[in-house]
Amino acid sequence: MTNDFSFQNTTKVHFGRNALSKLSSEIIKYSDNVLLVYGGRSVKKYGLYDKVVNELKKENITVYDYDLVKPNPRHTDINIGGRMCRENGIKAVLAVGGGSAIDSAKAIAGLVCSDAENCWDLVEAKKPITKALPIFAVPTMASTGSEMDASCVISNLETEEKKGYNEPALRPTVTFDDPVNTFTVPAYQTACGAVDIMAHTIDTKYFSKDDKMDMLYRMMDEHLKTVVTWAPVAYEDPENYEARSNLLWAAAWALNSFMTCGVRQAATVHAMEHELSAVYDITHGHGIAILMPRWMRYILNDETAPQLARMAYRVYDIPEDTPVMEAAEKTIECTEKLFFETLGLKSRLSELNIDDSRFEEMAENACGAAGVIKGFVELTPKDVVEIFRMCL
Amino acid sequence: MTNDFSFQNTTKVHFGRNALSKLSSEIIKYSDNVLLVYGGRSVKKYGLYDKVVNELKKENITVYDYDLVKPNPRHTDINIGGRMCRENGIKAVLAVGGGSAIDSAKAIAGLVCSDAENCWDLVEAKKPITKALPIFAVPTMASTGSEMDASCVISNLETEEKKGYNEPALRPTVTFDDPVNTFTVPAYQTACGAVDIMAHTIDTKYFSKDDKMDMLYRMMDEHLKTVVTWAPVAYEDPENYEARSNLLWAAAWALNSFMTCGVRQAATVHAMEHELSAVYDITHGHGIAILMPRWMRYILNDETAPQLARMAYRVYDIPEDTPVMEAAEKTIECTEKLFFETLGLKSRLSELNIDDSRFEEMAENACGAAGVIKGFVELTPKDVVEIFRMCL
Repeated sequence: MTNDFSFQNTTKVHFGRNALSKLSSEIIKYSDNVLLVYGGRSVKKYGLYDKVVNELKKENITVYDYDLVKPNPRHTDINIGGRMCRENGIKAVLAVGGGSAIDSAKAIAGLVCSDAENCWDLVEAKKPITKALPIFAVPTMASTGSEMDASCVISNLETEEKKGYNEPALRPTVTFDDPVNTFTVPAYQTACGAVDIMAHTIDTKYFSKDDKMDMLYRMMDEHLKTVVTWAPVAYEDPENYEARSNLLWAAAWALNSFMTCGVRQAATVHAMEHELSAVYDITHGHGIAILMPRWMRYILNDETAPQLARMAYRVYDIPEDTPVMEAAEKTIECTEKLFFETLGLKSRLSELNIDDSRFEEMAENACGAAGVIKGFVELTPKDVVEIFRMCL
Repeated sequence: MTNDFSFQNTTKVHFGRNALSKLSSEIIKYSDNVLLVYGGRSVKKYGLYDKVVNELKKENITVYDYDLVKPNPRHTDINIGGRMCRENGIKAVLAVGGGSAIDSAKAIAGLVCSDAENCWDLVEAKKPITKALPIFAVPTMASTGSEMDASCVISNLETEEKKGYNEPALRPTVTFDDPVNTFTVPAYQTACGAVDIMAHTIDTKYFSKDDKMDMLYRMMDEHLKTVVTWAPVAYEDPENYEARSNLLWAAAWALNSFMTCGVRQAATVHAMEHELSAVYDITHGHGIAILMPRWMRYILNDETAPQLARMAYRVYDIPEDTPVMEAAEKTIECTEKLFFETLGLKSRLSELNIDDSRFEEMAENACGAAGVIKGFVELTPKDVVEIFRMCL
């Protein structure tokens, strides 16, 4: 029987080729200035920076540039953004970029409205962030879906930690989703983004101990099928509007609370991957791609097989009369084929110059104070080391 | 290629067996009194009225009773509700009931914040309703999904008109969805509700001229499949929690703007049915059930067949190798079988004592000033009369 749940998602979305034309009229309702949060090269190179700034001119919105966004955003950079807002009386933040830009904007928006100067205090203390500056987003990548969710993930390079936090106040006010802005995403990032979208469904709900409501379970099937169908198209044909729009909307709906309704679960693969990208600064989606099929193989048993098998039947079109254990194996094979052949991702940690020297330490951190990662199947540090080894 | 769209749905939903325990803590954030909008018998008979009132006592919220709700809510009753709120300084409305109760609450909430005394002026003048009292809902039926959408439908018995209006201000603030509160819905109303849920998907988006985004089209398949699967279960076994929860959540998501993203379409069958229930005061879902398969048959041709056929393959499990026209016919047959056999609804207007004496007049009204109902297939008054005749 499905657990009780609460659902609310207040973000307004303008989606399509004319999404950006609504930028200034939406922002001016809240502020006559913005911190423009972006990561430099590609946003400027492909003209999006100029387009955004021109749109903001329509309502004479003053722009303060914050161009410090990097993959795995750092708490020290967030602190700089917080100071910029306080010193200049900035009343709104506008992220232009992928998940890192949007997560940075959220962390800055929350920091400014707190009494902290160091955002890591907020991450660590898990203080409730009850207020934030209004957050606006122009996503340039289909990946985290941060543009419609309430969470952000920040890295601390000093302590080699990567932590997420989730507060309703951090949900973007308006997001402007033009699939055309994702045409320039390189094949590698397209692949990593697609893996991340799938992982959000698989890792947080599709495979789970909690009973899923039939309607939502069915929608998860189709969500995964959407990514499996369109990611290879976008990978081969980057300017395919249909592929890019399906991926962008699938990203937003993977983690915006809808399909998770009634499922309460830690994301196991994410917990392991956060250690990899915190220590080795690799691309999150690539870390997930390497871990996911090995994790599936590690947890496969008579009890878990039916859930893995369902993915074979519903997502990978394996005939329904295939025996359960065989179908579960097919899910693993098809996932490997998709990630490592069709989407061209390197399949081994060793290919990313990661060896086993820190596996024990990372496994301990992934399991945290509880000593286990709860989730579909509970993992101890010993299990996590074993999965890391399978990825070498 | 999918049309551009905007999406926002701000309603907070508490769903499950403990949903009502959050009633007073949510309402007190907005008001220390409420107009309790309900329809009398069943709400009191099964103890829900007492349960709600007891919950409201927790925060000493003063209750003003408005028990005038009837099927096809009347504008004159709405006006009485408006006066009650103004005279007593009521600052919030709480609907307990089906779509008629929630629509009544919305219409009252909008009327109170306008400068009108007669809600029909708002319906007719199509004045934008930019403000409304906060609206809360305890749905007792899976049907309209009014608890999560921004529209309401009001009838004028004097002019025999039934009109809907849709304003963001009319979207409920919080809805408290306990599937157990739908256990007492009689079989007939369960059937009518299920038909209405399916019609919201079929009539507004599933069959449409506009291109649908692949992900959303797939989710519509599963939405319909959910109703087709669980409506017969709830019909036979009214206290089946799984069936009732799937239907309740399916109702909310049928019309809450998510699956309509990118599709702009008038609801043809709804337009025809509104004439039937305005003139003959029949149950909306029953009118839809009678019209839907005849409308499908009337519009079936080489151009429309592929969309009807998809429903056969994806929703009714007709083998994928069935030829398109044959599959489209199967969709009509399966829909008739579901509505008129499995769900036991009478299949002909004559069985509801409706004859052809007013068909021309109703057809003219359904087509309105434009002279046609736009939608999946454009219908003239002549077409509408023909479809009414097929239902006799």
